[in-house]
Amino acid sequence: MIDLNSDLGEGFGAWSMGDDIALLDIVTSANIACGFHAGDPSIMRRTCAAAVERGVRIGAHVSYRDLAGFGRRAIAVPPRELADECLYQIGALDACARAAGDAVRYVKPHGALYHSASADPEIAAAVVSALTAFGGLALLASPGSELERAADAAGIAFHAEGFADRGYTPAGTLVPRGAPGDVLPPRDAVAQALSIAVGGTARDATGAEVPVAVRSLCVHGDSPGAVAMARSIRDTLAGEGVELRAFA
Amino acid sequence: MIDLNSDLGEGFGAWSMGDDIALLDIVTSANIACGFHAGDPSIMRRTCAAAVERGVRIGAHVSYRDLAGFGRRAIAVPPRELADECLYQIGALDACARAAGDAVRYVKPHGALYHSASADPEIAAAVVSALTAFGGLALLASPGSELERAADAAGIAFHAEGFADRGYTPAGTLVPRGAPGDVLPPRDAVAQALSIAVGGTARDATGAEVPVAVRSLCVHGDSPGAVAMARSIRDTLAGEGVELRAFA
Amino acid sequence: MIDLNSDLGEGFGAWSMGDDIALLDIVTSANIACGFHAGDPSIMRRTCAAAVERGVRIGAHVSYRDLAGFGRRAIAVPPRELADECLYQIGALDACARAAGDAVRYVKPHGALYHSASADPEIAAAVVSALTAFGGLALLASPGSELERAADAAGIAFHAEGFADRGYTPAGTLVPRGAPGDVLPPRDAVAQALSIAVGGTARDATGAEVPVAVRSLCVHGDSPGAVAMARSIRDTLAGEGVELRAFA
Amino acid sequence: MIDLNSDLGEGFGAWSMGDDIALLDIVTSANIACGFHAGDPSIMRRTCAAAVERGVRIGAHVSYRDLAGFGRRAIAVPPRELADECLYQIGALDACARAAGDAVRYVKPHGALYHSASADPEIAAAVVSALTAFGGLALLASPGSELERAADAAGIAFHAEGFADRGYTPAGTLVPRGAPGDVLPPRDAVAQALSIAVGGTARDATGAEVPVAVRSLCVHGDSPGAVAMARSIRDTLAGEGVELRAFA
Repeated sequence: MIDLNSDLGEGFGAWSMGDDIALLDIVTSANIACGFHAGDPSIMRRTCAAAVERGVRIGAHVSYRDLAGFGRRAIAVPPRELADECLYQIGALDACARAAGDAVRYVKPHGALYHSASADPEIAAAVVSALTAFGGLALLASPGSELERAADAAGIAFHAEGFADRGYTPAGTLVPRGAPGDVLPPRDAVAQALSIAVGGTARDATGAEVPVAVRSLCVHGDSPGAVAMARSIRDTLAGEGVELRAFA
Repeated sequence: MIDLNSDLGEGFGAWSMGDDIALLDIVTSANIACGFHAGDPSIMRRTCAAAVERGVRIGAHVSYRDLAGFGRRAIAVPPRELADECLYQIGALDACARAAGDAVRYVKPHGALYHSASADPEIAAAVVSALTAFGGLALLASPGSELERAADAAGIAFHAEGFADRGYTPAGTLVPRGAPGDVLPPRDAVAQALSIAVGGTARDATGAEVPVAVRSLCVHGDSPGAVAMARSIRDTLAGEGVELRAFA
Repeated sequence: MIDLNSDLGEGFGAWSMGDDIALLDIVTSANIACGFHAGDPSIMRRTCAAAVERGVRIGAHVSYRDLAGFGRRAIAVPPRELADECLYQIGALDACARAAGDAVRYVKPHGALYHSASADPEIAAAVVSALTAFGGLALLASPGSELERAADAAGIAFHAEGFADRGYTPAGTLVPRGAPGDVLPPRDAVAQALSIAVGGTARDATGAEVPVAVRSLCVHGDSPGAVAMARSIRDTLAGEGVELRAFA
Repeated sequence: MIDLNSDLGEGFGAWSMGDDIALLDIVTSANIACGFHAGDPSIMRRTCAAAVERGVRIGAHVSYRDLAGFGRRAIAVPPRELADECLYQIGALDACARAAGDAVRYVKPHGALYHSASADPEIAAAVVSALTAFGGLALLASPGSELERAADAAGIAFHAEGFADRGYTPAGTLVPRGAPGDVLPPRDAVAQALSIAVGGTARDATGAEVPVAVRSLCVHGDSPGAVAMARSIRDTLAGEGVELRAFA
């Protein structure tokens, strides 16, 4: 049993990005942009409605306030303000989910915030404090990160995610972007997804087994190739009897 | 028994506006900016917390997306998008209210949206549809407006507001800004507040009685004089035995 | 001799729109977005550089401040502020053009501003006042519009533009969007472009000749089909000996 | 002979900050916000006009794109994009200066950008590259900073600024904010201004002389006390025969 999550609703106004509907037919959890790096109110409401129609779980993909940089640039926001910005985004998306008959069920930080909160305990605590303030939402992020520690400390449910198409190091962390083996070719990605879902392991560059204990796999939809790979992962998992199911 | 409402939380980032704390000690309902014309997540959370501490009711002061114009400029937003923008703002503020142990209890449109939604049935219906989508919030606006009609049509609770410091016409509408008698001097404003609260009437320019059936009076806090006037209205009403109480 | 103009640089941050490079190989004048409806500083600088490399004239595509609505929504900005907003955008683009060794040569309003300034003398005068303040830039807009009148009154050079793919009425105005014959199929658009460029006429729905005296034709690039049509117009005009040349 | 500079035009829309007109009667150089941390087109144009009326030199106070944080938060913008953002801001302000009959004469980074560009050679080079791209504007910043080195390397005129009201270390750098002696009381600030202007020295916490070789002194106007101190500095310098004059 595993969850598939993807980043969705990342258009803004006249601009679109990715094929949300195709992805919603594949994943079980949707990380929906909340207007700070992408997503406007109408895109958010429509994406929530489309997710609810398909039984896909709604998560808030919270970000630094950075439309111009798509949330990919770290901003030195004081933690207290960052917590408030996360709270704001969660609430805004929750209203859209409510209009569709559901609610925000979890939070996943986006882009630069994902990275800075994974590495910095103070930033992680700020993000988690917003989840607590909203009533105790679950957190989806990388295992072993400061986000996991902050969630544990706050009594917030934490769900670990892995990546089908990213190489793993012997230590079980991701091969850094730009290093050899950082991104796997589609065939290997599908195999790795299956290996993680069924056996809880991936293989490092030497072929040695690495434990990857995650509840969710992140798939992408920003290109036709990405959508095809996500679909292939879903079909392969389903064909092997893995139950695809939102984690909480 | 009457409610006093005021526009609050209208700073943004490094910029402040008005004396929110002074006003919160006076009013019973706070129309809190939601980030579209003013208000950032930290200001919103702090204003909600300060309101809850004082037992002041929290309302969402929704606006066109217009930080540069403080929401004072009408924008030709398609109604469906406008509804979504209102929903987004309500949810964002509700998260801040939730963090303070309360919730958004009502909605009042701000500035240009107040005016356009009061006059245009399609815009009024768009605003009201957001209240319905959020679960049926009450609406605070001018009596006899398209907003009142839209709320009635949608089965949404409507609370009429009057103005202490604005002149009334024989028809019970406000003397337009710029016309003689549009704004009353402080002493007359206090008298009018009492007259509306106790007798449900104001006086037009000829001194004739005009029925003003409202549940709430709007007071301002954007200058030291305005705060003093609001305090004087509160003290006078309380001295005359009028119960000050949020409307819902 | 005729000019071909197109709207370019309409991405923002991570979002792209249209095929700017393909268009720059076709047109003689580029209406480049200035950051208010689309375009960020890097897109602006790169688009200016690509235009200069190809000898394409740079124009400022000024807009209402409306990233969320792509400048398609009229905003009730006071004329004085609107003039300042246009001036700001012109200067920002001029710096990008200067970095590429050129300068802004003309201005064309975008979207809702194009429409409101064409119809409203006060808005037209505000736009034109920015051109005067910058030192007397030329204006590109529809013939017979308030923009033409405002430019004439201010002593600003005015260049009229026509449309290859829009139907004309017997009065020489465009068939309104949504009405029958509003948009021409590609083959008719190419024929109309040639007819306007060579003979200064189009044909209305009855086939009667309509004078269309313009110095420039607007072509679009927001779809592969649009780019193909623009290229076909260019090739046809060139094949018939029409000189393609920026207007000023 | 010394220059007095101050940060001006830092309102936005309905929000104001500081007393620009009072400061413009005191300083010789105005660092005017360009819309990225503060300042909208109308404030920019009016501030430029008021500066030109008084013979005050216009400088572009360029910032990270951060209205919500007033430019006080570092943003990890790629250097190439940062250069473009600075270029954009310079051009926008130059158009406003041009409308007032003048031009941008120099650039001073604001807030977090001032700090990061002072310390990081890559960021400094990005800022300086915008000055070069615009045609070779002068740079105003702290002596000994990476900004000075980048300006020297690029052949850009560099003007060093000091602070009347900030304590100096024996090394001639500022006492860090929060450390004892970081901010001087008004009387000491006036004395330090005179000492720097006349003798090119300040005194450290032990009273020892420290060389402070600067062409400009930065004064603030964000409170009535700050304006009074700036005026006192100006009057004292003038009374002692120091010529107050923009640096280039």
